[in-house]
Amino acid sequence: MHFSERLDRLTSSLIRELLALTQQPDMISFAGGLPAARAMPPLGLAGVPETLRQYGTTDGEPELRATIARYLTGLGRSCTAEQVLITSGSQQGLDLVSKLFIDPGTTVAVEAPSYLAALQAFRFFGAEFLELPLGAGGLDPQQLRDAIRQRRPAFLYLIPTFQNPSGLCYDEATRAAVAEVLSESGVPLLEDEPYRELVYEPCDRTPICTRLADGAPWMVMGSFSKTGIPGLRIGYIAASSDIHPHLVRIKQCTDLHTNRIGQWWANQFMQSAGYLDHLDRLRDYYRAQRDAMQAGLQRYLADLATWQRPHGGLFFWITLNEAVDERELLQEVLARKVAFMPGGAFYATPPARQGRMRLNFSHSTPEQVDRGLRVLGDTVREHLGRHSRRHATTG
Amino acid sequence: MHFSERLDRLTSSLIRELLALTQQPDMISFAGGLPAARAMPPLGLAGVPETLRQYGTTDGEPELRATIARYLTGLGRSCTAEQVLITSGSQQGLDLVSKLFIDPGTTVAVEAPSYLAALQAFRFFGAEFLELPLGAGGLDPQQLRDAIRQRRPAFLYLIPTFQNPSGLCYDEATRAAVAEVLSESGVPLLEDEPYRELVYEPCDRTPICTRLADGAPWMVMGSFSKTGIPGLRIGYIAASSDIHPHLVRIKQCTDLHTNRIGQWWANQFMQSAGYLDHLDRLRDYYRAQRDAMQAGLQRYLADLATWQRPHGGLFFWITLNEAVDERELLQEVLARKVAFMPGGAFYATPPARQGRMRLNFSHSTPEQVDRGLRVLGDTVREHLGRHSRRHATTG
Repeated sequence: MHFSERLDRLTSSLIRELLALTQQPDMISFAGGLPAARAMPPLGLAGVPETLRQYGTTDGEPELRATIARYLTGLGRSCTAEQVLITSGSQQGLDLVSKLFIDPGTTVAVEAPSYLAALQAFRFFGAEFLELPLGAGGLDPQQLRDAIRQRRPAFLYLIPTFQNPSGLCYDEATRAAVAEVLSESGVPLLEDEPYRELVYEPCDRTPICTRLADGAPWMVMGSFSKTGIPGLRIGYIAASSDIHPHLVRIKQCTDLHTNRIGQWWANQFMQSAGYLDHLDRLRDYYRAQRDAMQAGLQRYLADLATWQRPHGGLFFWITLNEAVDERELLQEVLARKVAFMPGGAFYATPPARQGRMRLNFSHSTPEQVDRGLRVLGDTVREHLGRHSRRHATTG
Repeated sequence: MHFSERLDRLTSSLIRELLALTQQPDMISFAGGLPAARAMPPLGLAGVPETLRQYGTTDGEPELRATIARYLTGLGRSCTAEQVLITSGSQQGLDLVSKLFIDPGTTVAVEAPSYLAALQAFRFFGAEFLELPLGAGGLDPQQLRDAIRQRRPAFLYLIPTFQNPSGLCYDEATRAAVAEVLSESGVPLLEDEPYRELVYEPCDRTPICTRLADGAPWMVMGSFSKTGIPGLRIGYIAASSDIHPHLVRIKQCTDLHTNRIGQWWANQFMQSAGYLDHLDRLRDYYRAQRDAMQAGLQRYLADLATWQRPHGGLFFWITLNEAVDERELLQEVLARKVAFMPGGAFYATPPARQGRMRLNFSHSTPEQVDRGLRVLGDTVREHLGRHSRRHATTG
């Protein structure tokens, strides 16, 4: 059998292998990005109209598209329902955008680190990466300007609000400066916003696409998987009108349209009287989860690592004081029934022995967080001790 | 902006443009392939477990995969649950297979005519087509053998049971001979079976994949959109174990997993006590619809065209006695609020002025069928008259 060249570029997904391991009932997993089932809204599918049984339109249910257009317009990204495409989860947006923009060898600009499933999707279609390191306020606008001049990427992929994996929220000045560079250069922006409603402290969250000059191309993706019900697989991508129609035609070729029950649910959810209260409860719940992890980190890893307490999202991004092989460390901690995500997985070009970890705080109970971090702290300490000894012996 | 080369290969979908037109309330559309809403089972989502709100596995819900494996094994295609991948509609199976097999220039063997959305998906990824014309019993096995020897396709795409658009059901001898050629050559089979349960007369429907020699690679796709609820977007692809794991990894990169509510519904549906009764009722309903169209065709088009009464599926495939430009005819009949699908759309290399039409009989009422076919007959007659006159004048 002869498979496509594309298949060789499909690196095996560490997330997937880990999620398989975390199915074990006694595993404490900080590795995935699962929202907490106990904080999810109820399904409430009693009122689904029978008319939704029939095939639907590729773009999505008109009511949901209108609701999303109003939401984006409210954020400052003026947008009509006709510019919104409902996707089968936010991940599908990445597939559609890849299909639209990426040939083998096409340059895509990404943050370093960035969302690993996005890197995987872009690479699958043959992308070469232009990696832009994240600083305290986001990426460096001047570096972006220079990089665009030199390599002219097909688009820039950003997660400016509670970035995955770093937890970073771009500051206002950086948002404005990035928008300016994009407006000048005409490079399309793909802004991924899965976490924007999971906010625990006041901070600027104005989407960068709202700050672009008229005529600059943009795409913004959102999801109902973090605030609503991931099992329904409902996301969206809104785009400037020079991009949107292509995405719709590609979506048609990909899966005809997204399931209508989930779309109906998502629209009811956003329109419901209790929606804002639900978001408040969710934020309170996750804020407490974050604080429990912050406390645990201070208790068990304060002398071993540094981190920023994230203002939103679902992750802590930890840098160990000594560079270690994260995958080796992962093997050791998995043997003790604790999982984290090694930092290297989030780089298009993984740095060796970086000693970074992403820790999810949404899924585990505070007791599990405490126990898991204690095990993690012990394992890191033993790992370092062993390696220092080894170095001492061989050095 | 710079888009991918792939986008240039995305021909605009006639189906989509037509479906837009058929939204007009007074349109009688024989163009689409919509199942009849009034023959669909009820949604019945009251019992969906709240545990299905969380993210699911890429392969799909274990219960549904097991049910499908039992179903395929019952048909003679021995298969484990581990070989089944649940897809976001059957169309997604085409996307995943394209990603796995097709680079620009890859040869794919298809029937002529074939399902236009499959041709579109394969072409989007850069396929070159090896077209195998359909005869009375299916494609010609000797021609297939020669073609494989000459051009070695990456896979063979077949819809052997109530083929779309031709309505053809391969006879037993052809099924066996095709399986033999594939077993000898090792070319993978992609067998698409959306219509196999919509059977109105006894005929051999044994899947070709059941007749392959051990070790021969195979994929078989099925759908819940024709017997169940299309709006849920649930399909599946089962495959030999040298293919299945690749499809799963590609699916993960594409949309993580299929919506779980739809999967739950599909499993309940297939397991329910009333399932076989529902299929019987559905067959009775569509058989009557088919017979109404057969009567209408005899009434209004008997002197203008030939066709076979299909033993299953949703379509009549009509060949006009005189070759006309089908798209011109379509414009004329659309002006009179009737739609059909021009035959040329179903060929990788569309023949000019072939005078073929696909007519769907599932969606319209018997009254609409009668009225629509009368208009179609009148329009064809006038079209031929005008063109004969024109020929007479200019000739």
